[in-house]
Amino acid sequence: MSRPAHRRPEYHKINKDLFVLTYGALVAQLCKDYEKDEDVNKYLDKMGYGIGTRLVEDFLARSCVGRCHSYSEITDIIAQVAFKMYLGITPSVICNNSSRNEFSLILDKNPLVEFVEELPAGRSSLCYCNLLCGIIRGALEMVHLAADVTFLQDRLKGDSVTEIGITFLKKLDEKKYRRKK
Amino acid sequence: MSRPAHRRPEYHKINKDLFVLTYGALVAQLCKDYEKDEDVNKYLDKMGYGIGTRLVEDFLARSCVGRCHSYSEITDIIAQVAFKMYLGITPSVICNNSSRNEFSLILDKNPLVEFVEELPAGRSSLCYCNLLCGIIRGALEMVHLAADVTFLQDRLKGDSVTEIGITFLKKLDEKKYRRKK
Repeated sequence: MSRPAHRRPEYHKINKDLFVLTYGALVAQLCKDYEKDEDVNKYLDKMGYGIGTRLVEDFLARSCVGRCHSYSEITDIIAQVAFKMYLGITPSVICNNSSRNEFSLILDKNPLVEFVEELPAGRSSLCYCNLLCGIIRGALEMVHLAADVTFLQDRLKGDSVTEIGITFLKKLDEKKYRRKK
Repeated sequence: MSRPAHRRPEYHKINKDLFVLTYGALVAQLCKDYEKDEDVNKYLDKMGYGIGTRLVEDFLARSCVGRCHSYSEITDIIAQVAFKMYLGITPSVICNNSSRNEFSLILDKNPLVEFVEELPAGRSSLCYCNLLCGIIRGALEMVHLAADVTFLQDRLKGDSVTEIGITFLKKLDEKKYRRKK
């Protein structure tokens, strides 16, 4: 990741509830539009992807994050800087394999579901927050990092935690990367 | 408006851009779903109404606003407290008639359209931010105030300002109101 000029130093904050309720309206609309949960999930991911590709430039400008040298570092920045900045939470990060390209973000709190007690009736396969996966995927792609991003566990589905899995798909070429520094 | 206990004193803030882009995705989806702009506008208003009815309790709890004794006071609270709290802006208020039940909120800035350069092609009658009208209408109804809330001017449509009109539909019974104090 590059370190662009710090164009807009101030954080532009709004009240979370308005966002959370608007997101709920969006999911409800997609549930009306698509009969199959898989289609709603795909569409939320696709929408999120578009949002991520637009959000990333601003994120880099505001966060002033420097170059990352490992997938672990990148995932830490997603959890500690991006989630904090955009949702006000800091998921914990777990590395899931020895190749160090598979990670989990564990969300103790999930503001997006604050007004949601349970999944809508007959929507047991819905990934309610799938927009988040799309956003992460889109943002990563804009910094030339291909990744699979999916919900592995979800409290709304009765799991004990909410867990987003990120699998980076290409080997990070550290040598090449270092030469560019 | 009553003065309920101050249950959650802390403001829950998130980054505005995530909300603005998610709102854009919602409007885009409704434009896919409904051919006529009027139907999109109606639907945004309806969604907003639902959001407003849920948001108002929290607003009253957090803002600690006291009883209002005139429509003018109520409109000032919408502009100076609610808009500030939820969107980070403070519209100016104009009273439009001698009965003092018709008001305009003039928005110099409108964060919801920050990423929108113009209305989508063929969507010249779209009230892009109509969710806001529904939210105000829904919130007012929950405190037993019936109102018409519509966009009177919109910069996205080439107007020089963005103006939301609020017309309160019943005479505020001040005597009755005072007795209740």
